[in-house]
Amino acid sequence: MALLVEYDGSAFCGWQSQPHAPSVQDALEAALAAVAATPVRTHCAGRTDTGVHATGQWVHFDDPVGRSAKAWVLGTNANLPGTVRVLHAQAVPVDFHARHSATARRYRYLVTDTPVAPALYRGLVTWRRGSLDAGRMHKAAQLLLGELDFSSFRAAGCQSRTPWRRVEAISVARAGPLLCVDITANAFLHHMVRNIAGALLAIGAGERDADWLERLLACRDRRQGAETAPPDGLYLVAVRYPERFALVPPSRPFLFPFPGD
Amino acid sequence: MALLVEYDGSAFCGWQSQPHAPSVQDALEAALAAVAATPVRTHCAGRTDTGVHATGQWVHFDDPVGRSAKAWVLGTNANLPGTVRVLHAQAVPVDFHARHSATARRYRYLVTDTPVAPALYRGLVTWRRGSLDAGRMHKAAQLLLGELDFSSFRAAGCQSRTPWRRVEAISVARAGPLLCVDITANAFLHHMVRNIAGALLAIGAGERDADWLERLLACRDRRQGAETAPPDGLYLVAVRYPERFALVPPSRPFLFPFPGD
Repeated sequence: MALLVEYDGSAFCGWQSQPHAPSVQDALEAALAAVAATPVRTHCAGRTDTGVHATGQWVHFDDPVGRSAKAWVLGTNANLPGTVRVLHAQAVPVDFHARHSATARRYRYLVTDTPVAPALYRGLVTWRRGSLDAGRMHKAAQLLLGELDFSSFRAAGCQSRTPWRRVEAISVARAGPLLCVDITANAFLHHMVRNIAGALLAIGAGERDADWLERLLACRDRRQGAETAPPDGLYLVAVRYPERFALVPPSRPFLFPFPGD
Repeated sequence: MALLVEYDGSAFCGWQSQPHAPSVQDALEAALAAVAATPVRTHCAGRTDTGVHATGQWVHFDDPVGRSAKAWVLGTNANLPGTVRVLHAQAVPVDFHARHSATARRYRYLVTDTPVAPALYRGLVTWRRGSLDAGRMHKAAQLLLGELDFSSFRAAGCQSRTPWRRVEAISVARAGPLLCVDITANAFLHHMVRNIAGALLAIGAGERDADWLERLLACRDRRQGAETAPPDGLYLVAVRYPERFALVPPSRPFLFPFPGD
């Protein structure tokens, strides 16, 4: 069974189970176990970090009791905290794996440069002091397109075998006080989106330029990069799977639509 | 001194001081007193209820120490919780009163009708089960325009001398999963926006029609109305004052822009 899951990451230590902190995985597995009356183990498409949100996380598990998709949605939501919701459930072939079958992930990073930090939407949008030039960020971001070695954007503890990833699309746009960085890649290294966002913020603020980004990419050294951007504004919004799995809906629209959504 | 204030109402029992609950007024007066080193008493444009937010609340107080507007912004924000921010401060004539000088208030009510309640933006957007017809809501809402007796939309405990209010503009629009009710009036009765929103939600869901709204308005009986809509999606977004006070900015743009903002 596959689930499309939305969550507010502010309340959690991230997707993955941790010994002494509440994780999305623990909350979801506890709710599934309550429905199944037996332990359930889940696997997700993207193991989001502490404070990172999702509107389109996909999760799969082996259904131990053979309930309907609708029963899984209703039963699981009845046992989840309100900060995690199952939006959709769907039976999938036995060879479907939420992480291994995924061919692309899409993340959105929301940031605002209002003169005073917002009192509202705390933890849901990153605030950056000083005005940002979205056009300059968008132009520089295009340097990151394609199959590249992202060592300079990789957290020290990253477990991946290879630093190569293929960025399929990246854009930066402004709507009023809000900037949206949208990035799709086959997969992401640990902290890759937040390290890219951090570099783009430095460029948008005029502290760095596109030449610096090009050199940063080439030097393959994380220590030359900008600060990792905070998790607040980061959302896993969609995951792509091969068509044969026929996952519908692939995602749900963002609650606050951004122009072009 | 006048202040433009933004707050997340989720954390507060509303604007007004209460004996045993945290209010926005108490938080703000404590921060102002810390800057002034003497007690400060504030007055606001709109005394929002528990859980109601503001992006454009105006507040005034008698400056006991003669600090600059900039010093008040920085000093007050340094002493406020992050859920309340002073966006702007401005010296005003002695006859300025945040409530009595105001000639109009504008509120925004955000609601979503997604099949499953959102996990994100809890307390910041109202969720309503079942799909809503924004066009039908907008059309019916136009019946509320003008100088009318709003007794049917007035809370039982409302202290106002008169039930007459002048609605200058009202609109309902959809952008993706989000509906926005925007309403401007010279002033509002207690619960008036939420009671109007509740009536419009019943119309949008197809439970009631425009004829019912017309009869409801005419009968001047709150008990004939729909349920009061929850405070979650309600924001005080702007207050209008006579031009001679030269308050700038009149408001700050909504963080998540709605088409037409």
